[in-house]
Amino acid sequence: MSVVHYAFAGGDTGSWTVVHQMTVVGEPLAAVTRLSMDAAPAGSGPSVRWVLRGFTSNVRYAERSELSALRSRQQGLGRANARCAALIPIRKNAAWWALAQDERRAIFEEQSRHTAIGLRYLPAIARQLHHCRDLGEPFDFLTWFEFAAADRPAFDDLVAALRDTAEWRYVERETELRLERHD
Amino acid sequence: MSVVHYAFAGGDTGSWTVVHQMTVVGEPLAAVTRLSMDAAPAGSGPSVRWVLRGFTSNVRYAERSELSALRSRQQGLGRANARCAALIPIRKNAAWWALAQDERRAIFEEQSRHTAIGLRYLPAIARQLHHCRDLGEPFDFLTWFEFAAADRPAFDDLVAALRDTAEWRYVERETELRLERHD
Repeated sequence: MSVVHYAFAGGDTGSWTVVHQMTVVGEPLAAVTRLSMDAAPAGSGPSVRWVLRGFTSNVRYAERSELSALRSRQQGLGRANARCAALIPIRKNAAWWALAQDERRAIFEEQSRHTAIGLRYLPAIARQLHHCRDLGEPFDFLTWFEFAAADRPAFDDLVAALRDTAEWRYVERETELRLERHD
Repeated sequence: MSVVHYAFAGGDTGSWTVVHQMTVVGEPLAAVTRLSMDAAPAGSGPSVRWVLRGFTSNVRYAERSELSALRSRQQGLGRANARCAALIPIRKNAAWWALAQDERRAIFEEQSRHTAIGLRYLPAIARQLHHCRDLGEPFDFLTWFEFAAADRPAFDDLVAALRDTAEWRYVERETELRLERHD
């Protein structure tokens, strides 16, 4: 996975319409009506309320068997029928980041089945992880999901399953934006 | 480990004098006579030939037992008698970054004993890893070492041992700068 930087700009312009914005835990993110996602740097301007920056990178937890399973089942972003999306920015607490690699891996997968849960919803729910903690951003990760309108209930199940895990006890800030595309 | 950004600026100013600069593999880095290391952003200016940026971050491979061993033995940077230093920028190839986490871990530690080798030289050879691949920098890692003049032979042994590992077969660009401080 090559490193590509993106910027998610919330405001009143952008090709994605915010249909719902919800604070799950921690400090809220200012409410916006539209969102754009572009290769960084993002355009700023009076119509932009906030910009969240992140980058795609190499996998940090997935083992070979998991990576092969993911790659054999996942489809790309931008599918014609995937007119629904979600952006879920999260920040984990200091206790998470102080853990060793084997401790984080055990919570992430052996206890929480993070990859296994995501796999159940492939290829319907496409997903792209963006890292941002190392940029000094207010969140650690921005996860972007795309799916067809008919798969909204599956997406609801997916996020509910993840939030019910041991891993999520380390999440200290989380916001969810549900989006639709009409272009 | 909290995220802190640093900039290493090579040129003809800075508190570290370059006593030797060597290209190990790949494209050379322009020769400089002095180096400064500062919290980013670095000062630029006519005396600066290049700036390499990186950040400290959470551990990516070390397991709990290794992390505990490292922490019980390591000393900080800036020790009064540690007037020698080295900066080793490296870039790994695309094959490395395409590996899954368990594959990289197996090469890094079970095959190459990366952490075990470093431990042998603690506390004499202090070490700080800076990540930079995710910033789109020309290198993936900048490793900074500090040691007393009497420990130069130990440092030579350490880098020779690392370069003789399976992990190092993935290194496609590497430069070594040996430095001394006289302030």
